[in-house]
Amino acid sequence: MTLTPAEVAERSEQVAPELRPHLPPTPFVRFDAFSDEVGADVLVKCEHLQRTGSFKARGAMSKILTLTDAQRQAGVVTASTGNHGLGVGNALATLGGHGIVYLPENASPSKVAALRRLGLEIRAEGNDSGVLEPKARAYAAEHDLTYVPPYNDPDIVAGQGTVAVEILEQLAGEPLDAVVVAVGGGGLVSGVASVLKKHLPDIGVYGAQPVRDDAMAASVRAGEIVQIDAAETLSDGTAGSVEAGSITFDLCRELVDDWVLVSEDAISAALRMVIDTEHQLVEGSAAMAFAAVRDRRTELAGRRVAVVSCGGNISSRTLVAALA
Amino acid sequence: MTLTPAEVAERSEQVAPELRPHLPPTPFVRFDAFSDEVGADVLVKCEHLQRTGSFKARGAMSKILTLTDAQRQAGVVTASTGNHGLGVGNALATLGGHGIVYLPENASPSKVAALRRLGLEIRAEGNDSGVLEPKARAYAAEHDLTYVPPYNDPDIVAGQGTVAVEILEQLAGEPLDAVVVAVGGGGLVSGVASVLKKHLPDIGVYGAQPVRDDAMAASVRAGEIVQIDAAETLSDGTAGSVEAGSITFDLCRELVDDWVLVSEDAISAALRMVIDTEHQLVEGSAAMAFAAVRDRRTELAGRRVAVVSCGGNISSRTLVAALA
Repeated sequence: MTLTPAEVAERSEQVAPELRPHLPPTPFVRFDAFSDEVGADVLVKCEHLQRTGSFKARGAMSKILTLTDAQRQAGVVTASTGNHGLGVGNALATLGGHGIVYLPENASPSKVAALRRLGLEIRAEGNDSGVLEPKARAYAAEHDLTYVPPYNDPDIVAGQGTVAVEILEQLAGEPLDAVVVAVGGGGLVSGVASVLKKHLPDIGVYGAQPVRDDAMAASVRAGEIVQIDAAETLSDGTAGSVEAGSITFDLCRELVDDWVLVSEDAISAALRMVIDTEHQLVEGSAAMAFAAVRDRRTELAGRRVAVVSCGGNISSRTLVAALA
Repeated sequence: MTLTPAEVAERSEQVAPELRPHLPPTPFVRFDAFSDEVGADVLVKCEHLQRTGSFKARGAMSKILTLTDAQRQAGVVTASTGNHGLGVGNALATLGGHGIVYLPENASPSKVAALRRLGLEIRAEGNDSGVLEPKARAYAAEHDLTYVPPYNDPDIVAGQGTVAVEILEQLAGEPLDAVVVAVGGGGLVSGVASVLKKHLPDIGVYGAQPVRDDAMAASVRAGEIVQIDAAETLSDGTAGSVEAGSITFDLCRELVDDWVLVSEDAISAALRMVIDTEHQLVEGSAAMAFAAVRDRRTELAGRRVAVVSCGGNISSRTLVAALA
């Protein structure tokens, strides 16, 4: 294993106080109606209220804090139409520096506007988002700039782990039996589980993935990173294959106790539940984590369960499609 | 005038520090994308993130703080299926006391569950919400209990005015040219405008009402409280007639500089804008205030405008109907 959970936890705990001035803690609150419904104490880490609307702000900030002023001014390159791009843009807007983001020509105008508003330079190239990451990485290498990957990086994983550092503070010594986390590339669950298992070794870690796009769960089952035939999912924040050699694969293998595969209908229903009971907007990947709690309600009954509500960036179009 | 703006402002400023321990300040943030769109600095007071999901928590807390322990224990009576009921329930859950809420038998189960979760005793009677208020008031009088009206009460109006006390603190001396507030019974705009005009006498106060349900605007035009033929509106939080003799009528007459009547389509479009640019959920009445800014964008261009985003309690059903 190239990076152990203990190393991730240590790095998360080191970086947490450095992030604090730039990313104030998000609320950690009990969802009462949902707790009643499932018969468990469901405590929700509200990363949908995080700056930029997702936990990705943490990993990006954590990574960009390791750069020198000169490196940040020279340029930071990434590829993302979504939450990772916003995270990088926010970190550079906060710390100073120049950012270049690669995205497909068909990216939605509102997403492009949001990235531009953070001061990022936009490189719209082609319509295949799959090739943008290598392209961004190559551009950075060629011009001696810093490439910021979305999850396969120790500082990114450690940054996401600060979610759990905050959860532990906010628990204030109260027990916690389980944590449910949406999994895409695995950066969030790797960071969160590393930190939580250090302090609560008996905690159960549930990784949630869409039935239609379960690359990490399939890879763990196969014992190696595999490619799958993924279909479009409401959990667009977790979509995509797992990069070859990703440090998150071994971490997921070791840390995730149970994989919960969630249907699109269950994601929609959970989204509806959050709106109707809490009147908050979460994105599909966060709704998926709530759906996973419903799926495992029998074994979670009577337990104290943390759900990482990982983001809130959903479009009105997606919302209508999900709720209609 | 039975209650002057100066008296309201003084009472708001007195009660604000008493509310603070129970209702932490809500964010006051610039909506960047919307500011770009309308060419003004739009600063949003996020009462949709207020405890209970609406500013109504303030007025109810303010009123119930004036009661003795014995009065709270004896019983507090109100009539509401919506935000006011949640506000009363939250205040009693916080301060201690027994609450009775009258609501129609056809009230939605999720709303009833939310009120019950706050510890309120539910009295479901008939299906005409119009008669529930007099019924609640009569029950309170008969049993020597305290009735808490939704807006026609100096302590309620003063409580809502604490929204503006916070805005002034959060402005930290920066200028403000206008404020836009959704108007139903007029409690919120009366409180907010009383406080703001005391300190910023030149501020422009815009009152937003739905074209389909503009009882207060019509009353001000008529010079007396009038009944109108209201139709159903997405801004359900402001729906309903103005009570005869309401203290808010004279306050609205004196304080509101301009009435903006908003179409249902404009409310839907504003709701969509808030979701797509800020990924936050607001209710129809709050969306209406954003729509009013769009309507007056020419005169607000280049100005610093506060919008009171008064609540976030919208159901998934209403949301889909609005966005579809």
